Order: sequence, then C-alpha cells, then structure tokens
Amino acid sequence: MRQAGRYLPEYQEMRKRHSFAQLCTTPDLAVEVSLQPYRRFGFDAVIVFYDILFLAQSMGAPVEFTEAGPVFRRPVAEERDLDALHPPDVHGLDPRTGTGAILRVIGSLRSELPRSTAVLGFAGGPFTMAGYLLGGAFERSGERIRRLIHDRPSFVHRLCERLAAATAEYLEAQVAAGADAVQLFDTWAGVLGPEAFREFALPYEKAALKKAAEAGAPTILYINGGSHLLEDMRSSGAAVLSLDWREPLARARSRLGGGISLQGNLDPAALFATPEEVLRLTRSMLESLSGDPAYIVNLGHGILPETPISSVEAFVRAVKEFQAREKPPSPGSSES
Amino acid sequence: MRQAGRYLPEYQEMRKRHSFAQLCTTPDLAVEVSLQPYRRFGFDAVIVFYDILFLAQSMGAPVEFTEAGPVFRRPVAEERDLDALHPPDVHGLDPRTGTGAILRVIGSLRSELPRSTAVLGFAGGPFTMAGYLLGGAFERSGERIRRLIHDRPSFVHRLCERLAAATAEYLEAQVAAGADAVQLFDTWAGVLGPEAFREFALPYEKAALKKAAEAGAPTILYINGGSHLLEDMRSSGAAVLSLDWREPLARARSRLGGGISLQGNLDPAALFATPEEVLRLTRSMLESLSGDPAYIVNLGHGILPETPISSVEAFVRAVKEFQAREKPPSPGSSES
Repeated sequence: MRQAGRYLPEYQEMRKRHSFAQLCTTPDLAVEVSLQPYRRFGFDAVIVFYDILFLAQSMGAPVEFTEAGPVFRRPVAEERDLDALHPPDVHGLDPRTGTGAILRVIGSLRSELPRSTAVLGFAGGPFTMAGYLLGGAFERSGERIRRLIHDRPSFVHRLCERLAAATAEYLEAQVAAGADAVQLFDTWAGVLGPEAFREFALPYEKAALKKAAEAGAPTILYINGGSHLLEDMRSSGAAVLSLDWREPLARARSRLGGGISLQGNLDPAALFATPEEVLRLTRSMLESLSGDPAYIVNLGHGILPETPISSVEAFVRAVKEFQAREKPPSPGSSES
Repeated sequence: MRQAGRYLPEYQEMRKRHSFAQLCTTPDLAVEVSLQPYRRFGFDAVIVFYDILFLAQSMGAPVEFTEAGPVFRRPVAEERDLDALHPPDVHGLDPRTGTGAILRVIGSLRSELPRSTAVLGFAGGPFTMAGYLLGGAFERSGERIRRLIHDRPSFVHRLCERLAAATAEYLEAQVAAGADAVQLFDTWAGVLGPEAFREFALPYEKAALKKAAEAGAPTILYINGGSHLLEDMRSSGAAVLSLDWREPLARARSRLGGGISLQGNLDPAALFATPEEVLRLTRSMLESLSGDPAYIVNLGHGILPETPISSVEAFVRAVKEFQAREKPPSPGSSES
C-alpha cells in the first residue's frame, strides 16, 4: 500500500518544489520520496513511489493528476483511440511517460537497502486501468465501465488485453530491475459481480501476474470492496491476497483455507483515532490472525492525507510488540 | 429501487418545466412522475418519487441538487451545527422542506391504484444521511465519515441518533399515509467493516425500522456494496434484504438460510446490453432462485440515466414469462 505522501512533512517540503508527476518520474526524487517513510518508521518493505497510470501514458494516453484524482483528457472512446495505443516502452526514460524511471528507482532502492528490507514494485490491474481510460475518471461504482461491458463488451476486452500484455511486460521488468515482490492493484474490480469479474477482470489479472511469478517474484493482488470476490481472487494465481478494511481477516482465512497468504487490512481511516485506540485496533487485528504464518501486516488501502504521524507510530509499535511477544520463549523461560 | 427518471421521455418532458426538487415536493407533479413507469411497464409496485435528503432539509439543513449529486452547502461540522438541527415537521407542507408533500403523494397513489399494486415509501439510512450531512457529498469510499467515526465518534453517534429518530417518525407517517411497505436505503453503509457497521449503522437502522414494522408494514433494507455485511443486515429486523448486483442471489440465500425475504439484483448497467442479452441475464437470475417463495424481483440499484426502454421491457417480459411458466400446472395439464 501507498506509504509516502501528503501526511509526511518531508514529502510536503518536496512537493513545494516539484509536481506529483515530477516526483514520480525523476529517479533521484522518487528514490528519496520512497525512502521517507522507511527512514521515519522502519518498515520491513519499501514501496516505490509511482502511479499506476504512467503505464497507460507510456502507451500513448497522457494522464493529468488533478486535486480530484487522475484524469485522461482524451478518454479511449472510439476504435481509433484504441488503435492509437501502442505497446509501452517500459524502459524508456522520456520523463513524459515515466515507466523507465521507476525501473531505475527499483534498482537504486535494491542496491541501497539491506537485503532484509524488501523492495516492492507494482502496477494497476488491467480492468482498473481500462476504467480510467474509458471514463476519464472513476465515478462512485464505476457506472461507465459497467455500462460498457454490456454495451460494447468486445471493445472493453480488446482494451483490457492490451493493458494486460503491457502490465505483464512491466511487472517482469520490475522484477528484473530488483523488485522482491510485485503488487497488482485492481482497485476498482470490486464494482463487478462474480460473473462479470470472471469475464472482464480475472483473466487479465492472471495474464498480468504470470510472467512476474515465472521470474520468481511473489505476487500480491489487491481489490477494494472485493469481499464478494475473495474465492475468485484466489484463481488469479497471486501468492498473496491483499484485503481492504471491510473483510475481517479471520473470516477471509476461514473462507480461503490455507495455501495462500493474506495482507492487510486496518482501515486507513482508523489512523484518525487516538494513538491508544490505534494500538487497540491494531492488536485486535493481529490477534484475530494469531499464529497464522502466512500474513503480511498492512493497511486496508493507501494511507490518507492528513494522517497523524503519531498514529502510524502507534500502528508500527503495536506490530513490533506483538512480534516480540509471539516469539517462541527460549528454553527455561518462565513466560507463559 | 428508483423507477422514474431521466431515461423516460415523459419524465424529461416534465423536467423541462420543473426542477428536480419541484417535481419531488409538489404533490400533483410527484404523483404523475411516480406513475409514469407504472403506466409504461405495469410494475407490481409504485415507488414514490422523492429524495432521501428532504428529511434532513426538514430538520434545518438545506440541500441542493446538482448535476454531480446532492450537496449540503452548510455541512454539519461543529457542535453548533448539530444543535441547530431540529426534529422534522414530517407533515409540514412547506415546499422548501418537502416531507409532508410525500405523505400526500403516498395517500393519492394508494387511493388511485388498484389494491393489487403496492405503494412503496422510503427513507435514507441514518448513517448514509449522516455521511452527506457531515461531508457535503459522498466521495468514493466515504473517507470523510470513516475518518470521523474514529476522530469524533460521539459527534457522529449524536447526529445518527437524531436522524434515526426523525426517520422512524417519518417512516411511521408514510405507513399511516398508505404505504404498503417501506424501504430504508442505507446505501453507503457498505463502506464500513462489520465492527464499525455494528456500532455506527446497524443500531440506527433498527431504530428507524422499528415503528414502521410495529405499524404493520413490511420493511426492506438496502445497502450498496454490502456483501460483507449480509449476516449483520439480518439483525436490522428488516423483513426483506435488498441486495446490490455484486452478491449472487443464490449465494445470499445459502448464507442467510430461510426466514427472510430477498430483493434484487440485476445490475442496472446490464440494461445497456441488447434486449436478447437482458432476457438471458434476467432469466438466469430468476432461475438461480427458482422456487424460492420469498423473493422480490428488482434491479440491484436505481435505474441509470439513458437506460434504453427496450431493455426495461425485456426485463419485465423475462419476469412475466418466468412467472407464467412457474405456475403449478392445472390438473390434467400436460406441461412438464
């Protein structure tokens, strides 16, 4: 999940001098921003600072980052818009695309950080990227793409196919550049029911994740509001399912059984509680999966702007205390 | 679910001369708009044309209906905003509030329509109304109210309490005015995980529904994106759970068991498919619950603007054909 951003004063300092896109696409700046939360909180992994839509930009669809979110000023509306998309130059260093910059950032982070700290790459799910490309922006429950999968299904399929091929290539390049694991954020696929999900999202998630897995990196799939898709998400082939805050982890584990890892899922909004309450909620989440060996502690979505730093500290403290307590007692110890 | 609106030419004709708020709050106009879809399609029930936020307006919070959705220009931000809210005059005929007008509309519809056609009233869930009042408008996953339930929980509780009391009174008045059943649209409660739902939405749903049920009317609860809350929704005391398009009906039935009715849930976006595909999807939905006696056919959310009328016709045709086929054969009939 997104670690850096507007809640950090050191990030806001850099934002005074650079646009969001500049921070993402200038390797030195992106390395610095990626490391800011690691330096402050000592996380076990560092996620590259980046936006999923640069890949679409690298395919010929310029994206603009506004206060209200990312927008494609020229949505893919007609056949000719689809035809105008080209395979991305994932290694290209043109700052107007930004894809190649992220590969350099991954390489720098990997060589700079200790081996015990994982470097995480990521990309957007093809369905989610298609939603942005088709609609300009995502509204509420994705009405535009939900309409289009019924109105012009083959058009949506062709767009998703192209995006999946590009994403597969990009994730593979991220692994080659040094990413220890890669995440696929199919954030908006939760607007689909299971039948539509299996037709318009799942096959493209599989295609996008396959090469990265073959390259030896664990893959992580995230969907927001995807409780109703949990069993289907498993079919994606991802090694880890990353859950939003809505689905209790213990219930997810009981639905899925073993053989797959879980990641998540404290509500990022819970970080607006008092530090004591953050400690309590985090402990309660950890205890709900106590003893589960296949679990990565995380939030259930990206950290929100204005999140108090004291809350992130409380979150990390709860996790470290829990880890220390859960360690098997040494021989002769009197711990219960 | 919303039946009338921008997809009907006869509605658009009326909108040329009247604002949305005028149509809702002028009894003669609201009766006419409510009847438009009934006349055209012959539904088994008529839903009053209305908006859930008039109730908040009747409590002293003026609402504005914009192209992007309803907005409170003066959100409830401070204690003094909360204190300024007053119990609604639910019977009041001041056109600036609109609550009393709807009671008249219900009365007129009930006396005008045959007994076999149900008249449905409704109101917004207290949590959902609170979300609008606190934030001005609902953004994506309700970040503002999700933050506030952690940052200022007692403030949110006090607002929801007041809204629940007003809603209970209003639903009871709708039943007294002639509504055969009432729906509670807690549309946005699906942004909460189960624990937060049980604290900030469920108690207020219960309180809102109780009096209407005591007055003898069946109650229906709808939540959008609430698959993860299905078992908790049952605790609301609603006689019917109305599901969005994400949760397959047969799976919901198997999760819930018997003793409760289901309503839903074709994706309104599916009405942008060809009529043949709409027939196929509707039949498939009906067959998935075949033989279930406690089921009300509906869409999974309000009908979308620009929906082709031929699709609504196909939807209704599929239901009527299915009903005719499912009728028990008369003695001596050779039907299989």
